[in-house]
Amino acid sequence: MKSIKVIVAGPRGKMGSEALRMIESSETLELVACLDRKNGGKQVKEIEELPNMDAMIYEDAEQCFSEIDADVLVDLTTPEYGYKHTKLALQHNIRPVVGTTGFKPEQLEELRELAESKGLGTIIAPNFAVGAVLMMQFAKWAAKYFPDVEIIEKHHDQKLDAPSGTAVKTAELIEEVRESKQQGHPEEKETMQGARGANHDGIHIHSVRLPGLVAHQEVMFGSPGQSLTIKHDSYHRGSFMSGVEMAVKEVMRLDTLVYGLENIME
Amino acid sequence: MKSIKVIVAGPRGKMGSEALRMIESSETLELVACLDRKNGGKQVKEIEELPNMDAMIYEDAEQCFSEIDADVLVDLTTPEYGYKHTKLALQHNIRPVVGTTGFKPEQLEELRELAESKGLGTIIAPNFAVGAVLMMQFAKWAAKYFPDVEIIEKHHDQKLDAPSGTAVKTAELIEEVRESKQQGHPEEKETMQGARGANHDGIHIHSVRLPGLVAHQEVMFGSPGQSLTIKHDSYHRGSFMSGVEMAVKEVMRLDTLVYGLENIME
Amino acid sequence: MKSIKVIVAGPRGKMGSEALRMIESSETLELVACLDRKNGGKQVKEIEELPNMDAMIYEDAEQCFSEIDADVLVDLTTPEYGYKHTKLALQHNIRPVVGTTGFKPEQLEELRELAESKGLGTIIAPNFAVGAVLMMQFAKWAAKYFPDVEIIEKHHDQKLDAPSGTAVKTAELIEEVRESKQQGHPEEKETMQGARGANHDGIHIHSVRLPGLVAHQEVMFGSPGQSLTIKHDSYHRGSFMSGVEMAVKEVMRLDTLVYGLENIME
Amino acid sequence: MKSIKVIVAGPRGKMGSEALRMIESSETLELVACLDRKNGGKQVKEIEELPNMDAMIYEDAEQCFSEIDADVLVDLTTPEYGYKHTKLALQHNIRPVVGTTGFKPEQLEELRELAESKGLGTIIAPNFAVGAVLMMQFAKWAAKYFPDVEIIEKHHDQKLDAPSGTAVKTAELIEEVRESKQQGHPEEKETMQGARGANHDGIHIHSVRLPGLVAHQEVMFGSPGQSLTIKHDSYHRGSFMSGVEMAVKEVMRLDTLVYGLENIME
Repeated sequence: MKSIKVIVAGPRGKMGSEALRMIESSETLELVACLDRKNGGKQVKEIEELPNMDAMIYEDAEQCFSEIDADVLVDLTTPEYGYKHTKLALQHNIRPVVGTTGFKPEQLEELRELAESKGLGTIIAPNFAVGAVLMMQFAKWAAKYFPDVEIIEKHHDQKLDAPSGTAVKTAELIEEVRESKQQGHPEEKETMQGARGANHDGIHIHSVRLPGLVAHQEVMFGSPGQSLTIKHDSYHRGSFMSGVEMAVKEVMRLDTLVYGLENIME
Repeated sequence: MKSIKVIVAGPRGKMGSEALRMIESSETLELVACLDRKNGGKQVKEIEELPNMDAMIYEDAEQCFSEIDADVLVDLTTPEYGYKHTKLALQHNIRPVVGTTGFKPEQLEELRELAESKGLGTIIAPNFAVGAVLMMQFAKWAAKYFPDVEIIEKHHDQKLDAPSGTAVKTAELIEEVRESKQQGHPEEKETMQGARGANHDGIHIHSVRLPGLVAHQEVMFGSPGQSLTIKHDSYHRGSFMSGVEMAVKEVMRLDTLVYGLENIME
Repeated sequence: MKSIKVIVAGPRGKMGSEALRMIESSETLELVACLDRKNGGKQVKEIEELPNMDAMIYEDAEQCFSEIDADVLVDLTTPEYGYKHTKLALQHNIRPVVGTTGFKPEQLEELRELAESKGLGTIIAPNFAVGAVLMMQFAKWAAKYFPDVEIIEKHHDQKLDAPSGTAVKTAELIEEVRESKQQGHPEEKETMQGARGANHDGIHIHSVRLPGLVAHQEVMFGSPGQSLTIKHDSYHRGSFMSGVEMAVKEVMRLDTLVYGLENIME
Repeated sequence: MKSIKVIVAGPRGKMGSEALRMIESSETLELVACLDRKNGGKQVKEIEELPNMDAMIYEDAEQCFSEIDADVLVDLTTPEYGYKHTKLALQHNIRPVVGTTGFKPEQLEELRELAESKGLGTIIAPNFAVGAVLMMQFAKWAAKYFPDVEIIEKHHDQKLDAPSGTAVKTAELIEEVRESKQQGHPEEKETMQGARGANHDGIHIHSVRLPGLVAHQEVMFGSPGQSLTIKHDSYHRGSFMSGVEMAVKEVMRLDTLVYGLENIME
């Protein structure tokens, strides 16, 4: 039964349009409206690139949240809009699920206080890829027992930066739980520069770039006689949507603000 | 500093001799005696296949535990001897670390009561491979979010049984946390019998056997757009010893009986 | 420079529309016409689902091959149409590149004679995935030195049949070069039925089905102390198009009929 | 039937002692003598670290080759001794199989002429790991069709140099068959130095070092929509011996000098 009423902000973005498709096929979530910078007053199904769904598009958040009876706002816009929408949604007793890395600490603090005073669940997450979040949590856990670890991330060759943000984030999480150490033989020598990869607190990171690849990462731990490897392969953006759906369901049970998907995945 | 005094029971077995070598190179553990069915009265270093260590071999457990000042008994014998040694060790205020799958529930219960009444840590573990234990714990955790999972285990071709005990154990742990489901397409058809592997509550298990391999397992989860894989490779028996060393250190902090390495690896 | 003039038959099919896109971005291939069961007389760019390209659509093959100055016909239709088109193309001095598994031996023989009498290259291939073809060739080569081998193929869980056609084809190629043998321990025992997979002449095949996966295969060889693994991952249908492009270029150099992409990739 | 009579030079070295064990379990090869720098006049079985085999040990090569009726010399000593032994063996009509990287071009030339004038097969190989040789041959073949490739090699953390010799050799072989190209995005940027690995003619090489690993290499090719990966795992030195056995059998069929195992593995 479609029992959770959802407003999506940013329906024409890459993430937003995937969110509409996820809601369309969900057994629990119902789309009740969209917030967009244009197309106000139209139905979603009238917009060519969007799915064939019945739901009004609003350009004004205040008006949208006043007129529409909604449980959850899924915001996939920009940090600026996301911040405004989140605040306004809470004031209208709508629970926000926000995908962003861009909120400032003082903004997060303000939103946390607001969520708590209203007793309303709020989830703000930089990453909705459940598999990637689990990989990082497992890596953090394993590093307590296996301090020797290297990270190999593989992406399509249109990616401009190396290493990937997820690889760096993984190394930072591992750094939190293990004592700092240099890995490899103390006297190891690169006969070709760069062979041993990037070095984050002794954790080596290797970035492979090839056409055809999408987004892949291996975290490999070694100790005498054994290896333990945690690997995540992401084949398309749709993989984020199971995380959004999980967050929408979970935010209904919360009465406070949670930052990061890992904190609702005990 | 060698600060934990250890007696090893079963020093000539495969696991026992690895345990001696682990203690020899440990910075914390010190070998103070061995319990063996023969060689009583000799030194470890006098036995050809054992490392060059100074420690008396006893054939009688009672005598050994009375004469020797020890903190921990590492028992790598059989279920029958292991049970007797554990009981006797607790009576002599020595903390047992026992590698066995063979204790009966009523024996475990009796030992638990004895450990608690003495306030002495006791660890009994069917598997000391830290990496394999982590793999199983991660698999159990991931299955909450990714109910579709298959297990591929690969071993040398001298292995007689398929699937491996670890694969079955992994499937059982997953079964505990996900709702029972059949996987694959409801109308899928094997055009060659066995192609889809063994089926444990809908979880498919595939057993590869090839010369050259040692002991390897992959647990692979899939959801739309992504896969998450947890892989353990065991190259030789020495991989168990980091688990034994961890247990010896941990048992010193406990005042009760713990069954299974996973329960000291929160 | 766009120097090879190509007619595509079947432009609205899955493979055909990928072929148009491949030609659109090719530096060497130029689209000069399409053969379709409908839309005769229109331009490709007038058809909604096709790329924005200038080329006339014909419904009649005879008329198309007479009016259009072309080097190569890429036929991605059905076996029936493919056979007729191939014959007619050769008669008009156009070199055929045909993707099909459905030609009968006597049809192939007739086409081979026709191609030779005209001195025109012709390529007929059941599989244009260059990577998969290489994987199979490598597997066949490796099996001469490593007779112990297992195949693990992984596909999305909408696939109905197990094992995949590529896995069976790979096993058949291996069978050609190694002596028949049963693998695994002579006394090995399945404690759960199907654990050891399907068995083709002693080669075990394992079929994994999970949501999120696309089409993947590993061929794993083992001998004392080592493994050699050949792995192909196909992420989307576009992967076939580099094989079509290669065939179009190669057919220009041939003066006879070649069956199977592997025979132009020695 | 033990039908090829073999002399092993260097029986106490790591490779030499493995060679004795291989001959011991071979159905075709028979050990008839050893050449060693010491132990002259003793039997192999009298030397503690060697297998229990009946064969005389000689210190003088001339005397050994004169007194013993042998088909093949397996030389696993040093380049200096190897060169002298090879020459002398050919003069005594014994076919040499030599494992070395150290012969100079003029030495090879001289030995080639000697082998041809005598009409005797001779095999000189820098690497007897059949699996690694196949991996390199496959990589060279695949690079014709997939010019984008990266190499990931993984070794135990006691290895001093990075990248491994095999990785560099693989890159050199690929370089021979593909046009030189830079890989990755033309504007890609390392935000952490070394992330993209070492660069050999545009081929990126990544060196992972972890305890527990032995010797592993992946060669990964990418093109739109697909990856092709060739992987070799070496678990212990015994893996070389199938290559030595193959060379001994093959050298009996040759009447000239062959350099490199790949040249007897068409």
